[in-house]
Amino acid sequence: MTSTATHLTLNRTGDKQPISGFGLWKVPKESAADTVVNVLKAGYRLLDNAADYGNEKEVGDGIVRAIKEGVVKREEIFVTSKLWNTNHAKEHVRPAFERTLKDLQCDYLDLYLIHFPISLKYVDPAVRYPPEWYYDGKGPNCTLENITIRETWEAMEELVDSGLVKNIGISNFNAALIQDLLKYARIKPAVLQIEHHPYLVQQDLIDYVQKNDIAVTGYSSFGAQSYIELGVDHAIKCPPLVQHDVITAISKKHNVTPAQVLLRWATQRNIAVIPKSNNPERLASNRDVFSFNLSADEIKSISALENGHRFNDPGFFFDIPIYA
Amino acid sequence: MTSTATHLTLNRTGDKQPISGFGLWKVPKESAADTVVNVLKAGYRLLDNAADYGNEKEVGDGIVRAIKEGVVKREEIFVTSKLWNTNHAKEHVRPAFERTLKDLQCDYLDLYLIHFPISLKYVDPAVRYPPEWYYDGKGPNCTLENITIRETWEAMEELVDSGLVKNIGISNFNAALIQDLLKYARIKPAVLQIEHHPYLVQQDLIDYVQKNDIAVTGYSSFGAQSYIELGVDHAIKCPPLVQHDVITAISKKHNVTPAQVLLRWATQRNIAVIPKSNNPERLASNRDVFSFNLSADEIKSISALENGHRFNDPGFFFDIPIYA
Repeated sequence: MTSTATHLTLNRTGDKQPISGFGLWKVPKESAADTVVNVLKAGYRLLDNAADYGNEKEVGDGIVRAIKEGVVKREEIFVTSKLWNTNHAKEHVRPAFERTLKDLQCDYLDLYLIHFPISLKYVDPAVRYPPEWYYDGKGPNCTLENITIRETWEAMEELVDSGLVKNIGISNFNAALIQDLLKYARIKPAVLQIEHHPYLVQQDLIDYVQKNDIAVTGYSSFGAQSYIELGVDHAIKCPPLVQHDVITAISKKHNVTPAQVLLRWATQRNIAVIPKSNNPERLASNRDVFSFNLSADEIKSISALENGHRFNDPGFFFDIPIYA
Repeated sequence: MTSTATHLTLNRTGDKQPISGFGLWKVPKESAADTVVNVLKAGYRLLDNAADYGNEKEVGDGIVRAIKEGVVKREEIFVTSKLWNTNHAKEHVRPAFERTLKDLQCDYLDLYLIHFPISLKYVDPAVRYPPEWYYDGKGPNCTLENITIRETWEAMEELVDSGLVKNIGISNFNAALIQDLLKYARIKPAVLQIEHHPYLVQQDLIDYVQKNDIAVTGYSSFGAQSYIELGVDHAIKCPPLVQHDVITAISKKHNVTPAQVLLRWATQRNIAVIPKSNNPERLASNRDVFSFNLSADEIKSISALENGHRFNDPGFFFDIPIYA
């Protein structure tokens, strides 16, 4: 299957999510507003945020400024955010969402996701915001809360009822969890966001959800890159995808960057991507994923790099296994 | 961790599940009663059954005969069975359990498991028993039913309330599903049964559930063996564990069979095993997993054979992914 689509059509609403987006994870507060203006000027129309990224206020400043400067209208952009683990209780979902909405300075969101299928002890935003993985002062100490995924999902559905968000979805969920969720969901998830790169293809999961009319967004398209900076040992030891022979050979053939090859490998398979870059040139080239097509053989050879390397794993980081 | 335990103590009841059991999967109806008498004579005290195995009536005949012949008393044996996928609705759980109880000719079961986290269209036992993976006459056609795992688990809990089963548990569940189940479970699962052999170690999952005081039983201890007979291609192509150099070298050193090494590797790590054999000699040697201990290095070298080979995967067989 080769797709030349520039958008994914979401179930229920028919909303169009751009297939090429910009991810705000690890964009520093200080530069977040400028970055948002720049990426919108560069043509990005999907901004992937999360309360956990700690920069929603500044992203909101950027959105407001871009709109004021006439770069975009609100309805031309697709704004995503994510509910953090400490806010899974039904009474916390709405306030958490409202804080995000206020920070992003929007009247509505296009998409709101459950960030992880993990519920952690509530943290009062007055005490710590964003709460991140809960600390008790002695380092990471993740206290699980007794809140089912169903409770959280029903509160997400109420956000849709309220009209404040158009689409809801999930992130970092596996197939068995999704199978269970689909049984009780009144509003079906529109999007699943997962780690996705040639070292972790997860084709069975993707096939399963796409067949169920749930759109897929892949994060960490370049593999280990973001996790090396975080000091993740197996990321440091892993051969970088952008330097992998298979990727560089294909990139030379198409006269594009290795990053573009990695992004096109996903988008051509109907998977949205949300790379980040602080470099204006890369930021522009990362969006250029429609001017060339990989051959079926090239896609196959890239997918064959699969080696099960998962970098964003709360089981590894915090002893909360969700992929075991 | 090296365990010399002969039993696993189950949470809540404190019941002792033998760590070395006998599995009745693929034991033909014709020989099932004799097999049960023989394995009980050989010292097995754990019989692992399932409605799906299609031989519970004959296993029951064997249990009755062994008790009549004075081989064992009912209270000396640990009888497990499993709820089939077509009986996940709350109104079907009790009748399905009662049919199993009647077939096994017992007053109670020691353990009853949800066989898979998959609910399939109900099949009237008068029409087809066991229903297996549902057929519509055109081959396997698995129609998923809209029954949540919570509904099924609550019906399982009611079986405990009724006094007809002492312990309940789950099979083929992953960590994220278990994490969700633990939030709503009034009665915590006593046991998780999973595919477990050196090609599919799943140590993170095992660590997670053992830490939560859920005992682990491993099936398919010899790897691909049972699946080769079923014509599973990747099982046929997979080097047999009992012939693997690492396993045969260790078996020679301890003067035991390769099968015993594979079983001891599990039991020493506090994982119960339920091998099957129709050969009286192997049947006896498979139970002898306490007369020798593997060294920590030997255990480590066996675990290092991990290659992610899963043989019992409904995603592969029936396009119902639960491990993706």
